[in-house]
Amino acid sequence: MEMLYEGKAKKIFKTDNNGEYLVYYKDDATAFNGVKKDEINEKGIINNKISSYVFELLESNDIKTHYVKRISDREMIVKSVEIVPLEVIVRNVSAGSMCKRFGVDEGLEFKSPVFEFSYKNDDLGDPLINDYHAIALKLATKEELDYIREQAFKINELLKTFFKKLDLKLIDFKLEFGKTQDNEIILADEVSPDTCRLWDVNTNQKMDKDRFRRDLGNVIDAYKEVLSRIEL
Amino acid sequence: MEMLYEGKAKKIFKTDNNGEYLVYYKDDATAFNGVKKDEINEKGIINNKISSYVFELLESNDIKTHYVKRISDREMIVKSVEIVPLEVIVRNVSAGSMCKRFGVDEGLEFKSPVFEFSYKNDDLGDPLINDYHAIALKLATKEELDYIREQAFKINELLKTFFKKLDLKLIDFKLEFGKTQDNEIILADEVSPDTCRLWDVNTNQKMDKDRFRRDLGNVIDAYKEVLSRIEL
Repeated sequence: MEMLYEGKAKKIFKTDNNGEYLVYYKDDATAFNGVKKDEINEKGIINNKISSYVFELLESNDIKTHYVKRISDREMIVKSVEIVPLEVIVRNVSAGSMCKRFGVDEGLEFKSPVFEFSYKNDDLGDPLINDYHAIALKLATKEELDYIREQAFKINELLKTFFKKLDLKLIDFKLEFGKTQDNEIILADEVSPDTCRLWDVNTNQKMDKDRFRRDLGNVIDAYKEVLSRIEL
Repeated sequence: MEMLYEGKAKKIFKTDNNGEYLVYYKDDATAFNGVKKDEINEKGIINNKISSYVFELLESNDIKTHYVKRISDREMIVKSVEIVPLEVIVRNVSAGSMCKRFGVDEGLEFKSPVFEFSYKNDDLGDPLINDYHAIALKLATKEELDYIREQAFKINELLKTFFKKLDLKLIDFKLEFGKTQDNEIILADEVSPDTCRLWDVNTNQKMDKDRFRRDLGNVIDAYKEVLSRIEL
């Protein structure tokens, strides 16, 4: 199969079907725009499974996603899309770059969710961007930005409820959207502990990629725990 | 008189009138968050005059400002306000931080103006901020942000027309707003070549603080030329 793209955590391949790609989940972990790198044994398997469950949940709640089916431990078939070059972030509790950027303590609960776009551009360090910039740079139209934001807020409500039942608090998450050949915008990329901050409701223990970023240890155990709570 | 605050380019003093402050325009020039510093002889005098003319123009076009009157070469009486900790930026043409942040060439004309807020906080380097962040950090309410944005776009139209008549192209500018004792939000700070990028319409020569930032020379001559075109 022809590889179309290799990202930090996944490889994308062409398939015989023009409307579909194959996604292969790697064990590679990176942080701080690729400065910190490692391999986390089995991470690709866990994230492929968690993403599959989450995409199925979202699809069953009328959120259109690129997900078609999981076909092996590390492989998923998805609809072929062109990725909108924006990282879409929703925050329920302060953490990560927002704390650093604005001098805010971690763990502050927001009255209503905080939304942000970043320009998906490694060379520039994925800078924060607003609607006016994104439109001026022709990254998306106003209507597309509004649609993506609306979808992201809906996804936040669905995921908050989903994870809460698993005794996990959804702190924040990053989404990516893609455009189909029919110009429809749908959720793409993955939804996993690589892209969501999840804290155990009772202990506040971090169950996500911050364990890797901050050298907290037991990274894969945390990912496995998230998966086992989903599969319970 | 009791000094309330010394900023990079101005000092603010109490007056006998509780509702008014006195602003003293200094010759100090700073750039890159205070890293580059110098004194530019007479800059305070020129900026006090230019700001006075601009505030008068805006007031006569139904924009509420803190301006009361100019009382000397370097001094202006203004309404006492509490500054909203946001830098309000409107861009008609790409320049400055936007080019650096997003890898855009200088001089790109936008179809419609680009608007941005920065969090006015020197320790954090005045970071770009969006409405959700500003509300979560309690810097302003949604209604206040919408009002400030609406005023900033109106001011942009007035200033574009004003400067165009003087053969100056308004590239971008930074505003600050303040809240009066009656909780009214009005334009504050200054409007001068320190806070506006102005290019000569015919030669594209920079007539603003970029002459200082980039060591282009003839800083005060450019400021004086702007003033002389206003006074013509």
